Amino acid sequence: MRGAVLYAPGDVRVEERADPTIVEPTDAVIRLSATCVCGSDLWPYRGIEKVDGPSPMGHEYVGIVEEVGSAVTTIEPGQFVVGSFFASDNTCEICRAGYQTSCVQRQPGAATGGQAQLLRVPLADGTLVATPDLPPDDLVPSLLAASDVFGTGWFGAVAAEAGPGKTVAVVGDGAVGLLGVLAAKQLGAERIIAMSRHEPRQKLALEYGATDIVTERGDEGVAKIKELTDGLGAHSVIEAVGTQESMMQAIRSTRPGGYVGFVGVAHDVALPGDELFFSHVHLHGGPAPVRRFLPDLIDLIWNRTVDPGKVFDLTLPLEDAAEGYRAMDERRAIKALLQP
Amino acid sequence: MRGAVLYAPGDVRVEERADPTIVEPTDAVIRLSATCVCGSDLWPYRGIEKVDGPSPMGHEYVGIVEEVGSAVTTIEPGQFVVGSFFASDNTCEICRAGYQTSCVQRQPGAATGGQAQLLRVPLADGTLVATPDLPPDDLVPSLLAASDVFGTGWFGAVAAEAGPGKTVAVVGDGAVGLLGVLAAKQLGAERIIAMSRHEPRQKLALEYGATDIVTERGDEGVAKIKELTDGLGAHSVIEAVGTQESMMQAIRSTRPGGYVGFVGVAHDVALPGDELFFSHVHLHGGPAPVRRFLPDLIDLIWNRTVDPGKVFDLTLPLEDAAEGYRAMDERRAIKALLQP
Repeated sequence: MRGAVLYAPGDVRVEERADPTIVEPTDAVIRLSATCVCGSDLWPYRGIEKVDGPSPMGHEYVGIVEEVGSAVTTIEPGQFVVGSFFASDNTCEICRAGYQTSCVQRQPGAATGGQAQLLRVPLADGTLVATPDLPPDDLVPSLLAASDVFGTGWFGAVAAEAGPGKTVAVVGDGAVGLLGVLAAKQLGAERIIAMSRHEPRQKLALEYGATDIVTERGDEGVAKIKELTDGLGAHSVIEAVGTQESMMQAIRSTRPGGYVGFVGVAHDVALPGDELFFSHVHLHGGPAPVRRFLPDLIDLIWNRTVDPGKVFDLTLPLEDAAEGYRAMDERRAIKALLQP
Repeated sequence: MRGAVLYAPGDVRVEERADPTIVEPTDAVIRLSATCVCGSDLWPYRGIEKVDGPSPMGHEYVGIVEEVGSAVTTIEPGQFVVGSFFASDNTCEICRAGYQTSCVQRQPGAATGGQAQLLRVPLADGTLVATPDLPPDDLVPSLLAASDVFGTGWFGAVAAEAGPGKTVAVVGDGAVGLLGVLAAKQLGAERIIAMSRHEPRQKLALEYGATDIVTERGDEGVAKIKELTDGLGAHSVIEAVGTQESMMQAIRSTRPGGYVGFVGVAHDVALPGDELFFSHVHLHGGPAPVRRFLPDLIDLIWNRTVDPGKVFDLTLPLEDAAEGYRAMDERRAIKALLQP
């Protein structure tokens, strides 16, 4: 099969790779209908995360089940399934508490290599969710979004306790931040402030339910949020970047007693204990337990209540994956969908 | 009047100071029935916090109202009152959300100088709570504890979401940690693990409701907590120290999706973003909004349901404040009560 491999920073190649097969009796192999490039794929692409030899890339996927292992009971060949980026059993105490990305049997790298034609998914019963039927083509991008970027934005909004009567600020205008806006809207937030200085992203944020746009960043951005909230700060802040600056911007934009939901993968972040102590904020985040939300998110998409697939503003054949990375790296595209 | 003043690390003197008076119409002046030395007073006493010239000490207090300003409406002379260490209006949006220590009118240093015979308390209506009547002498230590150390332990337990069915671990066996144990018990926790290697403190922890004692610290302490919780970690961890080691011990002892309530005043703490991200814990804490809990805590004490005053294992005349500091610094005493 064909699959994308990162050889070194900036060097993505689509090449012939071995077809995946059933290894464990709990595995499934799926034929991908669509896959995409994640913001987190840009960390190694930019050389900020170390690349240790050629690495198969991609961990967002939807597709049709080709084959399942002998122990798989709920997923069957022919179904259209949405997965999440960490395999989980969905039965352990941690999964039952809603933290499938910290499942005691979790396999973080399990879905790696998803920018390909075929993918082996471990713990198929716990990881995959089938749609009610084969989806019409126009729903595929949104279902693909549910497998990571929408689920991650949703978790950010849930962790930030977005809801009725709340003012929610969103730090980061990548696909996760934009879908955090959509999630906050769905969760009933009263006011949603998107922090963005890019016109096409502002436009999508407004379409997704943002009520205000703040173009300032850092201390100026914080001052602007305070100005919009009677000097108090937002009730809820979604952090969707993962840098020291964005984390501090999120914490400082939150009122005492408010909630920061942080879903940007942290890179070189060190939070000063004394500032955190006196900020009085609640801090929660991490790798989104997408599996917790998948049934609801699939439902919202299936009913056409939401259209998270709009974050894909570039669609390419899998063979052109390198261009997808380049376009996202240069911020020419919000998110690139790849057609295997 | 007489009052304790810190001149330099290790140098506490009780000396003649000017009697406080009503400055603002919202002030009260109270004659202290009891005061005490706080764990946080030991930071400057030990030279870890800078001492900028002679500093009046103390911020935990109970006493009888001597005089009130013209704008005070709910507090009156003759009442026995319990205060909290930050003055707050108790009416702003932040106070109403339960974060009085971040009140928009807060006065952090307001109660400073409480190791004395008299104390000026700003924002008296918002800061002080009167007891139903003059208390019998034996309740005074517990009421004093409510003004900071019990309220702080309670906030730690609330922030850690201690409650029915939960396993709660407590990092720190000072008075705050011990009262965190008592709070967790009152909040209905199923299992309470006190981390302590000091026999008298272990004894009080068990009396307050601890079900297990862990003497190990750091990585070994974390391993022990995991061992006691099926390898998962505690649901709730109260952090009551404020160092890098204790914060990391608390975060690492918490299961994914669990809650860390941190109430030890952070000193030189920097939390690694990536570890926090993958830990999946909820983090909340800060200066305890004691005022939120005071009515309930006074009630529990008045009905003799709890006896937080047991943390005072040394009682001295105010004149001997220096010995109180020494005894706590050398860990000969858990907490020293001073009689003005």
